[in-house]
Amino acid sequence: MEEQRKLQLATDFYQLSVSNVYFEKGFKDRKAVFDVFIRRNPFEGGYSVFAGLEQVIEYINNLRFEEDDIALLKENHPELTDGFLDYLREFKFSGEIYAMEEGEIFFPTEPVLRVKTNLIEAQIIETAILAIINHQSLIATKASRIVSAAGTYAPVLDFGLRRAHGTEAGLYGSRACIIGGCVGTSNVEAEYKWDTVSKGTISHAFIMAFDSELEAFRAYAKYNPDNLILLADTYDTLGSGIKNAIKVFNEEREAGRLKGSYGIRLDSGDLTYLSVKAREMFDEAGFESAVISASNDLDEFIISDLRNQGAKIGMYGVGTKMITADGTSALGGVYKLAAIERDGKLSPKIKVSNDPIKITNPGYKKVLRFYDNLTNVAIADLITLNDEVIDDTKPLTIYHPVHTWKKRTIENFHVKELLKPIFVDGKQVYNSPKLSEIRENHMVARSTFWPEFLRLINPSEYHVDVSDKLFDIKKDLLASVQK
Amino acid sequence: MEEQRKLQLATDFYQLSVSNVYFEKGFKDRKAVFDVFIRRNPFEGGYSVFAGLEQVIEYINNLRFEEDDIALLKENHPELTDGFLDYLREFKFSGEIYAMEEGEIFFPTEPVLRVKTNLIEAQIIETAILAIINHQSLIATKASRIVSAAGTYAPVLDFGLRRAHGTEAGLYGSRACIIGGCVGTSNVEAEYKWDTVSKGTISHAFIMAFDSELEAFRAYAKYNPDNLILLADTYDTLGSGIKNAIKVFNEEREAGRLKGSYGIRLDSGDLTYLSVKAREMFDEAGFESAVISASNDLDEFIISDLRNQGAKIGMYGVGTKMITADGTSALGGVYKLAAIERDGKLSPKIKVSNDPIKITNPGYKKVLRFYDNLTNVAIADLITLNDEVIDDTKPLTIYHPVHTWKKRTIENFHVKELLKPIFVDGKQVYNSPKLSEIRENHMVARSTFWPEFLRLINPSEYHVDVSDKLFDIKKDLLASVQK
Repeated sequence: MEEQRKLQLATDFYQLSVSNVYFEKGFKDRKAVFDVFIRRNPFEGGYSVFAGLEQVIEYINNLRFEEDDIALLKENHPELTDGFLDYLREFKFSGEIYAMEEGEIFFPTEPVLRVKTNLIEAQIIETAILAIINHQSLIATKASRIVSAAGTYAPVLDFGLRRAHGTEAGLYGSRACIIGGCVGTSNVEAEYKWDTVSKGTISHAFIMAFDSELEAFRAYAKYNPDNLILLADTYDTLGSGIKNAIKVFNEEREAGRLKGSYGIRLDSGDLTYLSVKAREMFDEAGFESAVISASNDLDEFIISDLRNQGAKIGMYGVGTKMITADGTSALGGVYKLAAIERDGKLSPKIKVSNDPIKITNPGYKKVLRFYDNLTNVAIADLITLNDEVIDDTKPLTIYHPVHTWKKRTIENFHVKELLKPIFVDGKQVYNSPKLSEIRENHMVARSTFWPEFLRLINPSEYHVDVSDKLFDIKKDLLASVQK
Repeated sequence: MEEQRKLQLATDFYQLSVSNVYFEKGFKDRKAVFDVFIRRNPFEGGYSVFAGLEQVIEYINNLRFEEDDIALLKENHPELTDGFLDYLREFKFSGEIYAMEEGEIFFPTEPVLRVKTNLIEAQIIETAILAIINHQSLIATKASRIVSAAGTYAPVLDFGLRRAHGTEAGLYGSRACIIGGCVGTSNVEAEYKWDTVSKGTISHAFIMAFDSELEAFRAYAKYNPDNLILLADTYDTLGSGIKNAIKVFNEEREAGRLKGSYGIRLDSGDLTYLSVKAREMFDEAGFESAVISASNDLDEFIISDLRNQGAKIGMYGVGTKMITADGTSALGGVYKLAAIERDGKLSPKIKVSNDPIKITNPGYKKVLRFYDNLTNVAIADLITLNDEVIDDTKPLTIYHPVHTWKKRTIENFHVKELLKPIFVDGKQVYNSPKLSEIRENHMVARSTFWPEFLRLINPSEYHVDVSDKLFDIKKDLLASVQK
């Protein structure tokens, strides 16, 4: 069953109406550079996680307008000229896209994706690229926070599909959760698309469909001996659920079937109290390896609290608050003009605003990350012009882009270029890694930052500076706009 | 371009693992009733708007498992039996679904959708139904709040696609925004699917692509004389944007081309101040009919404030906060077992919980809404058993379902049944109205409620009561569970 979508039309109409004017004014081959970036981290956090590139690549590769699209546009929008509609018939992305790799950690102001192509193509792809990256990066960032709150020894599963913004947001949300560090998802469709296997336990309805909880547990155990996680809270967690679970674990053990993972899921009540009590009951009954998993409106803050209070939870199932990125409704990624062709060469452009946070970095740029050679820990990021070369054998002084009196000199470092070529001359030159590899990449990326930048609440601000050359261009452009 | 989806797999794995046990235990033909309902209104509001039914119908009609799905499940989940996988090969929804009509207003605890079918079918369809309804109803509710804040004379447009949770959330989010009362959307794909035409103005990049703002305005005007909404804030709204707009409107008027709608869009700065100033400047220049539209992170609260402060805004473009339902990350709709077949007849079931809000209403039920015969205003809703008959020629005493000392007697009323047959014996018996009609239905529904229930902040609680018969069944079931 396929869904009838028209992704080529997943755009704001103004992209078409301005492209129509570009076309008629002879701007159709004029090159421009656009940057995707955020202005602040979501969740009042200290970092963000890049995700969605694989879907951007699919979108760009498949982007064609069909005859029924053209007919519809012609009928509904008489202002679109025949010449422009003919242009759309032949439309195919012909330009260049550079982007960070998925799972990479990024910060406000730095481009995570850079498009260089003609003005019309750049406008037509803007909206879908933003929708895809804004969504997946937001969820991946939330997941990364939740997974880090849960810690190394308690894996996190995504259970969010039913609360996602529709089934597609659930699907790509699951993907983003895994990128952020989840070990898996309940979403079966995700296992069709990526290298993951869906996970799950039991529903309350299942327990209620039987005459008793014990009968339900036994029936489930019969067909699921290797992954026997019983839902313990349908009637009375301590008085009935855990006791019946122990009864069934004993029966299974006696039958020689208790060989896989087994345990319970708590889905209501005080999770600290219940998990501590459950742990005692299981240990006493000789089920020291029983897993106590927990769900019920969890997020990074509740999980931190549970751990601080000594909850004995070995696995978290997180639904609503991860798949919807509770706390920040949108990442707020923007796509801004950075340079435009003038007399055959790219000329930097700046977007001014009364609101300083909305002033853009002009020019055709790249993003560098400096790592300490001794510790391999990230020191700072630097946004430079694309053709700048940093000599990593010499000390380098970097400046805060706003508070320029804040400067520091770094040495004994190496440099990583964060933007990789994805499309060159319209051809895909990058293959997305497997989902499991992207998740691994994120884990590695996270390990290169000091914990103070990753802290859930009130994190330190990681330094993202601009090069002297870029700073001068920005200053000059601001001055010229003010004139 | 179609998107490769597998909506039949858009489910939580536990739906399959419990269905497998149902199948093996001989429960596959056992009927059950499930209700979809919410526990509280989103946004701390007083009402919610039902949306998503059209997509639920499409999903149910197309729900089949394909050979590659079966192969995948067999490989990844050895616990699923061959018998069950064969059952999935033949799977087709065969049951009954009743639901409210889209655009209808609903309240916590009352079923908005009711499924009666065999246990396996009921579980397999749960997750996707919830994802669809939770998403669209949440956005429709947010849109309804925003549209009512904007008032009758200032239409609201959806500009949210780039900030939606991916392109599908943008598409169905646009649909939900229109159901909630928006006059249109910028989303071109929405016009392919429904009876709406996408709208839009100009991007900042367009203005910046020209040597001057005036040149950009003139170029746009040449190709868009009938819908000439100029973006006024790229450089300096009052000092340049509005002055240049007036210049172009004068040129267009002199050329006899200023016949459609024309005006400006403000996308930054203080919208009250700028709109008042813009209004003065336009009126002075003889452009009393120029529309001043505004965008920039608007929601129902900001719009209310702008109106209170005397902003002169004639149209709102709302993006991020409507398409993401800022303020409430998920509707929280649940799907709970209400009855199950026992000895050939449906027996009511209750889900108990320490948390009273989580205790369900048992039984095979319907929802009635009482309207005053004189005013046609809604008086209260009543959840009853499906076979109860209300005599609307006699006074009726209704009780608060929790605080039963709160009662009142109503008379001179008529009754509307809110749940309509959608599927009977697996056949679709309901056709979705056009989107414009659904929007109209919502407008009419909203007009039947006193404003105190629709208030944005601290609304009154609309009465949703349960019938005496239902109350008794619930009391008895609670007592029997406690034993």
